[in-house]
Formats: sequence, structure tokens, C-alpha cells
Amino acid sequence: MINVSIAGGTGYTAGELLRILLRHPEVNIESVISTTSAGMPVGEMHRDLLGETDMVFSDSFGNPDLIFLCLGHGLSRTFLKENNVPASCRIIDLGNDFRNEPNFGEREFVFGLCELNRERIRKAANVANPGCFATTIMLALLPLAANNLLTDEIHVHAITGSTGAGKRPGETTHFSYRDNNISVYKPFTHQHLTEIANTLTSAGNNTTPQINFVPMRGDFTRGIFASVYTKGDGELSASEMIELYKAFYAPSPFVFVSDKPISLKEVVNSNKGLLHIEFHNGYIHITSIIDNLVKGASGQAVQNMNLMYGLEETTGLKLKGSAF
Amino acid sequence: MINVSIAGGTGYTAGELLRILLRHPEVNIESVISTTSAGMPVGEMHRDLLGETDMVFSDSFGNPDLIFLCLGHGLSRTFLKENNVPASCRIIDLGNDFRNEPNFGEREFVFGLCELNRERIRKAANVANPGCFATTIMLALLPLAANNLLTDEIHVHAITGSTGAGKRPGETTHFSYRDNNISVYKPFTHQHLTEIANTLTSAGNNTTPQINFVPMRGDFTRGIFASVYTKGDGELSASEMIELYKAFYAPSPFVFVSDKPISLKEVVNSNKGLLHIEFHNGYIHITSIIDNLVKGASGQAVQNMNLMYGLEETTGLKLKGSAF
Amino acid sequence: MINVSIAGGTGYTAGELLRILLRHPEVNIESVISTTSAGMPVGEMHRDLLGETDMVFSDSFGNPDLIFLCLGHGLSRTFLKENNVPASCRIIDLGNDFRNEPNFGEREFVFGLCELNRERIRKAANVANPGCFATTIMLALLPLAANNLLTDEIHVHAITGSTGAGKRPGETTHFSYRDNNISVYKPFTHQHLTEIANTLTSAGNNTTPQINFVPMRGDFTRGIFASVYTKGDGELSASEMIELYKAFYAPSPFVFVSDKPISLKEVVNSNKGLLHIEFHNGYIHITSIIDNLVKGASGQAVQNMNLMYGLEETTGLKLKGSAF
Amino acid sequence: MINVSIAGGTGYTAGELLRILLRHPEVNIESVISTTSAGMPVGEMHRDLLGETDMVFSDSFGNPDLIFLCLGHGLSRTFLKENNVPASCRIIDLGNDFRNEPNFGEREFVFGLCELNRERIRKAANVANPGCFATTIMLALLPLAANNLLTDEIHVHAITGSTGAGKRPGETTHFSYRDNNISVYKPFTHQHLTEIANTLTSAGNNTTPQINFVPMRGDFTRGIFASVYTKGDGELSASEMIELYKAFYAPSPFVFVSDKPISLKEVVNSNKGLLHIEFHNGYIHITSIIDNLVKGASGQAVQNMNLMYGLEETTGLKLKGSAF
Repeated sequence: MINVSIAGGTGYTAGELLRILLRHPEVNIESVISTTSAGMPVGEMHRDLLGETDMVFSDSFGNPDLIFLCLGHGLSRTFLKENNVPASCRIIDLGNDFRNEPNFGEREFVFGLCELNRERIRKAANVANPGCFATTIMLALLPLAANNLLTDEIHVHAITGSTGAGKRPGETTHFSYRDNNISVYKPFTHQHLTEIANTLTSAGNNTTPQINFVPMRGDFTRGIFASVYTKGDGELSASEMIELYKAFYAPSPFVFVSDKPISLKEVVNSNKGLLHIEFHNGYIHITSIIDNLVKGASGQAVQNMNLMYGLEETTGLKLKGSAF
Repeated sequence: MINVSIAGGTGYTAGELLRILLRHPEVNIESVISTTSAGMPVGEMHRDLLGETDMVFSDSFGNPDLIFLCLGHGLSRTFLKENNVPASCRIIDLGNDFRNEPNFGEREFVFGLCELNRERIRKAANVANPGCFATTIMLALLPLAANNLLTDEIHVHAITGSTGAGKRPGETTHFSYRDNNISVYKPFTHQHLTEIANTLTSAGNNTTPQINFVPMRGDFTRGIFASVYTKGDGELSASEMIELYKAFYAPSPFVFVSDKPISLKEVVNSNKGLLHIEFHNGYIHITSIIDNLVKGASGQAVQNMNLMYGLEETTGLKLKGSAF
Repeated sequence: MINVSIAGGTGYTAGELLRILLRHPEVNIESVISTTSAGMPVGEMHRDLLGETDMVFSDSFGNPDLIFLCLGHGLSRTFLKENNVPASCRIIDLGNDFRNEPNFGEREFVFGLCELNRERIRKAANVANPGCFATTIMLALLPLAANNLLTDEIHVHAITGSTGAGKRPGETTHFSYRDNNISVYKPFTHQHLTEIANTLTSAGNNTTPQINFVPMRGDFTRGIFASVYTKGDGELSASEMIELYKAFYAPSPFVFVSDKPISLKEVVNSNKGLLHIEFHNGYIHITSIIDNLVKGASGQAVQNMNLMYGLEETTGLKLKGSAF
Repeated sequence: MINVSIAGGTGYTAGELLRILLRHPEVNIESVISTTSAGMPVGEMHRDLLGETDMVFSDSFGNPDLIFLCLGHGLSRTFLKENNVPASCRIIDLGNDFRNEPNFGEREFVFGLCELNRERIRKAANVANPGCFATTIMLALLPLAANNLLTDEIHVHAITGSTGAGKRPGETTHFSYRDNNISVYKPFTHQHLTEIANTLTSAGNNTTPQINFVPMRGDFTRGIFASVYTKGDGELSASEMIELYKAFYAPSPFVFVSDKPISLKEVVNSNKGLLHIEFHNGYIHITSIIDNLVKGASGQAVQNMNLMYGLEETTGLKLKGSAF
């Protein structure tokens, strides 16, 4: 059994991690840390867990084999500075602190995109879990990058559910605002752009392509739908291109290429990523979907843990989708 | 022209009042008051008003003929204590301060349920606008009360949109919580119960019936759907009862009895109230729907203003519904 | 391994059954029957199953140990008449054909409400799976019925998601109609009333209480929220009553009494039932929630199968909820 | 008074037209035509009109000054062939029959984009009302086209509400499918592309730009949100470009440029178009929003009628938005 603790236990990604880990056959949850809610039953905060756990939030992380950091962006470094985490304790960070700057003291964080870094993750002591938008977009582009086929700028619109904005209520997550509403935010300037560009070059693309990325706020709770297109390189036919995608993802148990158009709910509440590919106007057009809280955060973190501990990659992650 | 000011100008009911009054042919808006946002253009707060007004929030109410108070419950009395409103200035209060305790100094507030108090409102200097749940439920019961037919307890479930909870974001108005969710709050203890009971007796019912009222939070933004049943008195046939309802509401230009079952969106974004009546198990079952921000708040307030100033009751209120 | 077939394989409950059974460690799915879609890959119809199964719809049920009938109400008897199902093959019917009339030839169907009939189900060859509204309401009332405490009429409002209406598109499941809308249907006359009343007397209540049941259509996809109240018998205190509920459900691994108010999404995508109990106006007020497709249909069917085959009742049913 | 008839009276755009025209001070509705529902009260089909009209559907169009054709794409030519519409009767077609092929016998249809063709519409006997996606996208691009500034390809993602798909229920408008779901359809091949391209050149752009248009289905009922970018020509500064937009739309009473980012509900249930403009990566990025049923269909049709009859352009169209 892997003995784990979770820091930042009251947030959305920690809740989702708990939902998964409580059913994971190889995991014991030692501690769910919350400095503000220590002593409160976990099931009072994550109300759907009633009947599934008697744990209470703790103010110390105990002595786990692995800590998941679910702290909010920028707070993971602070946590490591303020807490004396033993060198032997592994870390999976769900924040963005170590994605682009992977070093902290002696620790080096491997970028936790399983479909790219599977072998490196198997040997990693520390993993920086990718961002949710970044995961969706990278899954759409990895096979091209790995074959150095990204030669032109990339056009991306991606629409996210409200859980991507976190638990703290605000104007744009107010139901009266968000219901039946659509908006754009941070167009062309989203913070995941660096992570995406770095990944595409580390996957094998010789140049760093320009990415024109327009993020949108959707009126749903879970999931990201990305629509991505870029000029094809012209040497591969449509069917060859699709075969290239299918071959690239053949070793990946959660990513599939659909021959038919896809809709977001086909992956909601699962750890899957689905892709669909078409060709128009000289562009290759890829639609890519994930559940932002599962494959885009806590599910991917557990997938990384499975790899780090030599477990079957899908352990605890064969989740029933909600479909509706 | 009636010269009006609006206190509490940044909230939902003030926004809705502005949407209506900016199109009202007999109204001039002198001042939209906000102590916290004075100087900000009104259209920056109520974003759908872009292109419709150049007004800015003010910190003084000027010298209007009428003030609408949109201040939140309990704050209207405070406002009147802290501001020297001339005796000649009329008041319509959209809060609950004067519904059950109608006196403030020399001022006496008439309960502004047009379908009950039309003639009193015509002569009123001050009006206490009814609550949104109360309006929906009273419209379902007024014809029975007026004929002293409420002889047994009354069973009510009513489900409200998120705008009923106001603008301040919180846990139960967070989109991630509310979307596709249903919950009950304040069962049997909602604060509108007194207002409803008082109204039914003042309408003519000899006894004060017990009301079992379960309010529900719905995952939509606008509207209240109430399902109400009570033992019929047994003397009237079904068709006589329906005729009694239709006769009662014949003078009311916004309330209609539908022969077919109704659904909430048939009144959303209008000032209408719709009722449908069936008979089962010895009960008369009435479904009643309004838009909480229009007929349940700002539209009803304008309807009261029209009556107070001798205008056609429907002036400025023939609103296009949204239907979808 | 239990070898099962599913009749009516293209509908919602069959899809949900597949989602569960594909992950069930003790089940082999022999055949998914569809007369209209035979030959089509199952994953083309139930699109979220892409990557999870290569099965195709079949026009014959093979030679299973157990058939699940997901055929729509009234069609199960027809199926059994038209198909020569061997006497040794067990049946779980998700339709309403055998709930109130449990005999068909030599077959006798046990009413499959695990929380009431657990021991009978363990020995059953045929099970009639309860209706979704009925399950929600019976869970709210079973402990009272079992103690003969239902002495007065029962008041119920319950609101259901759109998947309860099935897959065939129609006016009231059109998104343009249903989104942000609420309506009542079949008030006081819903077809589940007989099933509920029969169950309460078979549970031990000496009289058949009158049930005033107003079903509502909600603007969400999954789940039923029921609000139920009835006169308490006056002999038990509030805390004794709550203890009675908790004791009644202690042997049931999926039903819990929450000390805090509940909201629908706490059970969505799980096989759980949650109850919350308050006392007002001389009434005991119970809110009860389930996922209509899981605990209200396919999950409950699998729970019944587990009992019939001597498996742990929760096998394959420890589903991660969606929470949002 | 203008005497009008409406063909195709049971559909969504006819319903919306009725909602507007019943409140229009200069219009008399002579006939609402439905061959399938002749004799049925209009308020039974368009349920929100209860109490607002006693009209019944008719099978003949009478002798109007103007007919609105709300027939579905391709059916307007059929209607004109099968019905002997007098030459003196004007026509506004809400379908796509005459947008790109403007001639029918002696009749010539003016493309009814008021912001482009205002003066031609004033003199028109027949108007082809623009498509909803086309209107949203053209409003984003007209000022550039009119100044011959479209020199590079154009990138568009636009997401539409379910009412855009019409009233007939189907798989992708089923609530269980659509709620909380997102999908792409007809990427790069939408039928409005010709209409858009033609309009941009007729507005004054010397070349026909390539438009890469990805339409999306949103989980809301009303409105279209378009995100559009193209290379700026480099000669105008950001502020000059914004001034160019504001100057272009100064004569248009319903189109406004917002200095702040916009969200869809700011125009829902109004005849307004809102634009917001930013500059990134060498691109001008324009977001554009309308209500597809109002500015994208029936509201624009009434605006055209107002122009054709010399009325103030805004007559009957100063609609209260719903905001929430």
C-alpha cells in the first residue's frame, strides 16, 4: 500500500483526488491537510463523500510515502519552504509551481504528462502535474510535435467548465451570471501558453510554434473542449495523419481517436481524453476533450502515481463516466 | 413625467427597475444612488444597459417625486432614518421592512399587491412591495381567501431561481454547486409566511390558515414555480371554482388562468402571473408562476407606481417575454 | 463469472447498465440485444464507451445466466412471450411489468427494493426492479412503514431529471423548452403510486396511506429530489425518530441519513441514497435523493444481481460520484 | 398601420416575430399562417402569449401589405410558387432562399443587413433577412471590410444556442444530450460562409478573404458568441482601429462597441449587437454577440420593416433585455 497525504484538502482538486483514492486498491490516505478546517470531518466539506470516509482534516501531513499538493498556483513552493518534507517523501504537485521551473533544492520535478513522459515518470521522485487547458491542447498536438510536423502557427479556442475557476465564489462563477452565458478571458495571454510551448519542443518539434489561444468560460461545470487547427505539413495524407495519431496513442490506455465527431460529455467524469481529426482549407483540425478535474488534474495525478510506483497505469482509474 | 430616484442602485432589483424605467414613457430617472459605486457609469455595473443610458451612480437622491428603495431587507428603515426624505416624496419599498409593520413616522405603507389592493394603492403615498415567493403563492390563493374558502391547511412547494438570492456570491449561488442541482432551504420557516398569512386574512378569509411551505433552490436564474394545494370547501364544482378564479382576476391585466398545464418560462421576463387549476384527491391544486425579478419585484413596483400616479396599469410593462 | 445479456440495449438504462457491468469483476456480458441496431458497435450508440468495449449489438440473447430487460414499460411481457427464455435463465426486469403483478407463467418476480427485500432477493430467480420515483419516495418512508407509523396522508413533491423521460426526443425534453424551465406533470396520478402504496403495506404498515404526489420536471439530466412530509405519530421524539431511520438503514451499504441538509448532486453518478430529516408543524419532513439512472434503475439492478448471486452487495458499485 | 401576415407561424422565428409585433405601435397582424395548425389558437402553440392575443392560425394569408416568410430554408421559393402573392405585397424572407440568389420573377431581394444596406432597404420592396451566424460575424468584420482592411484569412469560432437549431426535436437538441455539453458541427463548411464572403466584398473589400469558421453547439437557448481574429493591416493603431469601429456604427442604433470584455447575456432578449476589440500577436481580435432570435432573425426583420416603411428604425424594438 502507498501511504499518501493531501495538502490543500478542501479545494476542488483535493476533493476529486479523495473520490478517486478512496476507491484505489493500493492506496492508504494518511492525512488530508487543511490549516483552516482542521478537525472538520472531510465529508462535511466534500458532501458527496458522506458514508464513504470518516476522516477529518488534519493540520499535519504525517509521514507519508507521497504528498499530493493541491494548494493553488504559487503556493506549493511556499508549502515546501514552510514544511520540512523528508527527502524520501515523493511529491506530485497539482499547481503550476514546477511545470516550467522544475527545480526546488535537491528536488527535480518531471513534467507529468504521461503520454509524453511515461518512462521518465516511472523513475521520478517528484512530478509536476500539467494544467487542465494545457493537457487538452497538448493531447491534440503531441503526435504532430513528436514528428516535428508543427511548422505553422496554431489556432486554439478552448472552453472550460466552472470548476476550472476553483471554489472561491466570484462574479464570473455566480450562477446568475454564468448560467446560459459565454465569455472570453485572457485571450492570447493565458498562463498555460509557456507550458504548452515548452512541451511541444521537448516532444520533438524543432521550432517553438506561435499559439493563438482564446480561452472561453462555458456554462457547465466539468470538462474542457478544445478546437485546434494548424497547417498540415502537406506530406502526409489525411489517413496517414490519422494513423500517426492512433499509433502515437496506442500505448496510452486513456487517450483515443474517435472516427466520429465528439461531444464533451463523452469524457466527463472519466480519465479519458478523446480526439477527433478532420482536414479542411489546408488545415488539420483536431477537437480534443477531457474532464478538467480528472484527466486535467486529479485523475492524471493518480495516473502519475501509478507509474511512479510500478502499478498498472489504469489502477483505480477505470471510472464510470456520467454520459449525461 | 414622474421624477424618480432609486436607492440601492447596484443590486439585481435596481438593475431590473432601470431596465423597465428607461423604457417607461412617463418616467424620468433623476438619480441612481449607490454609496459604494458613486461616480461609476450605471452601464458598467448593469452591463446589458450599454448604449441605453449615460447615467452614473450618485451618492444623493436629489429631489424626486418618488423613491424606489432597493436596499436589501432591513435596510429601508435605516435609509429613512439616515436621510431626510421630504414628506412630499413618495416611497415604494422593495424590501421587507414595511410589509408586516406598515408604519414609519408619519408614513403608512400600503401593501402593494395590486390584485388585492388596487384601489388603496391608487391613493397611497407609500407602498410596501410584496416578496417574490409571497406574490407567487398569494396569486394562487387570493380568490379562495377573498371568498373565505380557505378552511384547511395549505401545502406549498415553490422553487426559485438564483436571482432571488441576490448578487452577493456565496456557496449556494456558486455555479459549480448550483448547476444541475436542487436543494431545499428554510422548510416550513420561510420569512414570507407572515406576509402571506396576513394577506389572506386581509383578503377576506375569516381564519388564518396554516401554511406548510417548502422553498426549493432551482438551477435556473429567473422565476418562481409554486405548487399549492388545499382541501376545497366542497360546495363549488370544479368548473365553478375555475370561474371564480377567472372572475377574480378579470380586472387584473397581468394575471391569467391557463386551461392547460403551465411551465415557468411562459412568464419569464414578463410581468405576468399564470395559474393553472386541477382537482385531485379532494384537493384543489393550483400551480402559479411569475418572474421573481419582474412581477415578483421591479415590475410589480412599476405597476404600483402606475396606479399611484393614475396611469394605465400596464404602462411600460408590456414586456416581450423571452419564451426560451 | 456471471454470464449476462441485456435486452433493449440502446436505451438509457441499458447504457448505464453497460457502464457499470463493463467494470464489474464478476460479470461477463454475453450479448447486448437490439433488434433495430443489430450489428452496430455498442460504442457508437453509447458514445462515452469508446475505448471500453468492442461489442456490437446482437439480435439474439445467447445463452446467459441472467437477462436484464431494459425494454420500456409494458414491453417485458411481450419480450417473454416472443422469446423462449429457458427456465434456468434468471431475469431482472427494469420495466414496470412485474412490479405490481409479479407472475408470468411459472416465473414469480420479487420486488427488488434491496432495503426492504434483501433476504427474498438473495433467493430470487426473477426480480422486478423498482421505479425511480418510487425508490426515492420509498427510501424516505420505509422506516416509518416498517414500524407501522404511517397514520396520516403523505405529501410528496419530487423533481426529476430529463433522463427519466427516456431517449426518444419530444417537446418536454427539447433543450429549448427544458433549459431553465420547471413544470408539473401527472399531479396526484403518477403511475408509481400503486407500487409505492403496495410496498409500504408490505413493509409492515397496517393501513394503506393516501399519497398526494406532485411530480415535477427539472432542468437537469440526472437525479430525483423528493420532499416528503407526513404527520408523525407523536410518540417518538425527533431524536428517536432519526435513530429509528439510522437503525433501519444500518444494514444497507448505500443509504445514509445526513445530519445536514442535502443537495441532489451529493448522490449523482453514485448508487447512494441520502436522506435528511427535520420536524416542523407537527410533521416529519424527509428529503430523499438518488441518481435515477443508478440507484433508481441500473445500479439497483446490479445490486439485486449481486444479492441473487451471493456476491458482496456493493461489488462493482463503489462508483465515484461526480459531485459537480 | 402596416398590415402584415406571417407564413410558417408555428416555428421559433414566427413566435419571436409575434412577440415583437404584438407590441409594435404601427403594425396590425392580419394573419398567422399555418397549414398544419389552422384553427388552433396562436397562444396554444406559443404558450407565453397567453393573455396577449386571441388570434388563431389561418390557412390563408389574406391581403396584407407585407408578408414575413418564416418557413425554413428552401421553402420560401416554394411558397411563392404555390401562392399568388400580389406584386404590391412586400416580402421579408427570414429563410436563406434569397440571400445569395436575390431574384424571383420580378422580385429582387435586398440583403437585409441594416448596418450595411440601410439606404437600399429604405427603398426595398423585398428583403432577404441575414442568417444568425452571418449577422454576428459580419458585425465583427463590416468596418474592416468597408475600409478594405481585410487582407489576410479570418479565424472564427462561434457558439450558438439551441433555438438556432429550430423546433423539431432531435438528438443534438435533446436536453439529456445538450445540457452541460459542447460540440462542433460543420467545421469550415457552414452554409453561411457564402453569405458572409459576399457581404464583405459588397461592403467594399477588394478581395474575398478566406474564412476559417468553426461553429459550436452551446448548452444555452438564446444567443451567439463569436470570437474572430485576423491580421490587422498594420497602418492603423489600436486606438485608431477602435475609433474606426465606433464611427462606422455611430448611425446604427443597435450596435455598440464595448470598452470592456463582453458576455453573451448582455444582449440576450434584445435587438442589440455588442462588440469588443483587442489586439494581440499582430491580430485584431473581435468578440461579437447577438440574440440569434432577435437581432439574428425576427428583431432584424422588424428593423428592416421599419426602414422599408419610413418609421424610426427602433420602433417596437426597444426591448428590455433579460440580463440573467
